Amino acid sequence: MKILIATDSFKGSLSSLEAGNAIADGIRRTGMPAEIQVSPIADGGEGTTEALVNGLSGYLETVTVSDPLGRKQTANYGILPSGTAVMEMAAAAGLPLLSESERNPLYTTTFGVGEMIADAIAKGCRKFIIGIGGSATNDGGVGCLQALGFSFRNADNTEIPCGAVGLSQLQKITAENVLPELSACTFQVACDVTNPLCGEQGCSAVFAPQKGADAAMIPQMDEWLSRYAKLTKMLFPESDPNCSGSGAAGGLGFALKNYLHAELESGIQIVMRETQLEQAIVNADLVITGEGKLDAQSIMGKAPIGVAALAKQYQKPVLAFCGCTEHAATICNVHGIDAFFPILREITTLENALYRETARQNLTDTAEQVFRLIRAMR
Amino acid sequence: MKILIATDSFKGSLSSLEAGNAIADGIRRTGMPAEIQVSPIADGGEGTTEALVNGLSGYLETVTVSDPLGRKQTANYGILPSGTAVMEMAAAAGLPLLSESERNPLYTTTFGVGEMIADAIAKGCRKFIIGIGGSATNDGGVGCLQALGFSFRNADNTEIPCGAVGLSQLQKITAENVLPELSACTFQVACDVTNPLCGEQGCSAVFAPQKGADAAMIPQMDEWLSRYAKLTKMLFPESDPNCSGSGAAGGLGFALKNYLHAELESGIQIVMRETQLEQAIVNADLVITGEGKLDAQSIMGKAPIGVAALAKQYQKPVLAFCGCTEHAATICNVHGIDAFFPILREITTLENALYRETARQNLTDTAEQVFRLIRAMR
Repeated sequence: MKILIATDSFKGSLSSLEAGNAIADGIRRTGMPAEIQVSPIADGGEGTTEALVNGLSGYLETVTVSDPLGRKQTANYGILPSGTAVMEMAAAAGLPLLSESERNPLYTTTFGVGEMIADAIAKGCRKFIIGIGGSATNDGGVGCLQALGFSFRNADNTEIPCGAVGLSQLQKITAENVLPELSACTFQVACDVTNPLCGEQGCSAVFAPQKGADAAMIPQMDEWLSRYAKLTKMLFPESDPNCSGSGAAGGLGFALKNYLHAELESGIQIVMRETQLEQAIVNADLVITGEGKLDAQSIMGKAPIGVAALAKQYQKPVLAFCGCTEHAATICNVHGIDAFFPILREITTLENALYRETARQNLTDTAEQVFRLIRAMR
Repeated sequence: MKILIATDSFKGSLSSLEAGNAIADGIRRTGMPAEIQVSPIADGGEGTTEALVNGLSGYLETVTVSDPLGRKQTANYGILPSGTAVMEMAAAAGLPLLSESERNPLYTTTFGVGEMIADAIAKGCRKFIIGIGGSATNDGGVGCLQALGFSFRNADNTEIPCGAVGLSQLQKITAENVLPELSACTFQVACDVTNPLCGEQGCSAVFAPQKGADAAMIPQMDEWLSRYAKLTKMLFPESDPNCSGSGAAGGLGFALKNYLHAELESGIQIVMRETQLEQAIVNADLVITGEGKLDAQSIMGKAPIGVAALAKQYQKPVLAFCGCTEHAATICNVHGIDAFFPILREITTLENALYRETARQNLTDTAEQVFRLIRAMR
């Protein structure tokens, strides 16, 4: 039997590859003849860089870039054997980089994200996969664009300051000093939100509060972003702030799409393409996926459902393992997952269940029993 | 597919029949064509009467009998359509009937067990299945025998008092006033311990401490039981206090075996015979069993392993469901259980996991996914 294992990480316990190998160990314990391929998978969120770098034998680059408040910090991104750079915006401008009291989208910037991109360009990368979840920012991606040579000026013709508050002064945008290599670059941006840049469903109203915005800031920032969109249209006539995903990552989605001509797409789709998962599915008799928690929310663009949907295009049986689940997760059964198995074995605490060795053993033990069942029923 | 479900109770949550029906519900949810038979099963311990009465459509009798300290109490036993009486000694003389401070094997008696047997005899029963786990007593089963008409006398030729302490006076045993119907009765006694009546592995040394005995009582009681065995040999020359199971239930095993010519046997074997499980296994394509906790101890006479061993005589695949399990439970795989599945779905407390509706739903959900897997792999 040819078995393809493409599971998301078990967040807090096992990376995608560790989880895949734990499942493979369980299958091998049964002594069943099986040809097993472990392919990394991720949904564009946290762990995407790690999954692709480890799974595709890429390497990590460590660079010094600005953090969300402009302080120097180190951040990692990956370069795959194909030359594609893989990065997570949160590595440079993520909310976890700030203490609670530091969180204020008026002042947080995506400048470090642009620096990461520039570093990869300098190292020869021309293809980019960027996950944009977990941002601390609401600057419309302007910081990122500034780091790449776009210029955002105020009435005095000087560069506007960092953060959403800088946009309040914005009068003029120019592209004269943009990195020339950018025109040769392509960007795939993993984006699982559909929000527009402005308005009731815009990033200021929907996402800024969790980044530290108070009620008074929201209409202000929304208005500034609206003006930014109008000025952008003068440079890029086809730009549209209502386009799906423009409001992702505090407007970074809008910036990447219009200034860098990025394609915004579901993270799992990008990752599956990069890992050539479709061909692996075609070759498999059985596809195994999984994630830390499989629940009713999993059908909203999570990795296992992406894998299952692709596998079902080729009528392959699909199993999933998960750290835990819930009754309502049966909806996953109508989204391509034929059967799923939580790996909990006994009453324990969340902390103990998440402990790496516990999770690994539980996952291997569960996979072993599932494949013993498959063998017994043949 | 013909599926036989024969699972032990999930102790603290679901009876054998409730658990079996929950599994059947999960199978039916898949829409898989299946002919399902749910057969009750038990290992002779707590829940055996309930499992057989409910599973075989018997009925419960409620009788007033002596508790371990001679107080009047009500106790239940079952009568099956076959006429067989099913009872648990613990219903009349169980440790849970006493408070901590009341537990003292010098004074606790099995008299109520004999009263239950006599009641069933009066109601026409001649076949008995008796589970003897969980006793509060160490009286050698003398109380039980007294209730059935055997006479145990002291030097004054009067009946000895109740409890192990009565045996200290024992001089003579007679059978003159024994219930005449006893000679027509057969007793199958569910016994999963192999201890002799006396000595280092005897009931006084091994089990009496948990029934409230202190260190000084143990050699005393052991000596009294030894004398009881010698006097018994005068009445029943083939009696042997070293025979396996003689030390079960504070010597009740010895009493039933020698005075009532009972067969002591593993509880699951008795239950499987009574429920005609072997024929059901022969007719099945797949056998499902289970219990509350499947662990390395399960191979020591627990119900699921008994079912699995019988099923393997006919090369049937065997699955098990369990409330929880442990890594070492994989030893069950070499004792006939092809694959087992704990039903835990998420991090929770033991109390919540044991809640009847939670356990039922988790069991049904787990069975559903297992049978979805079976269907998907066909």
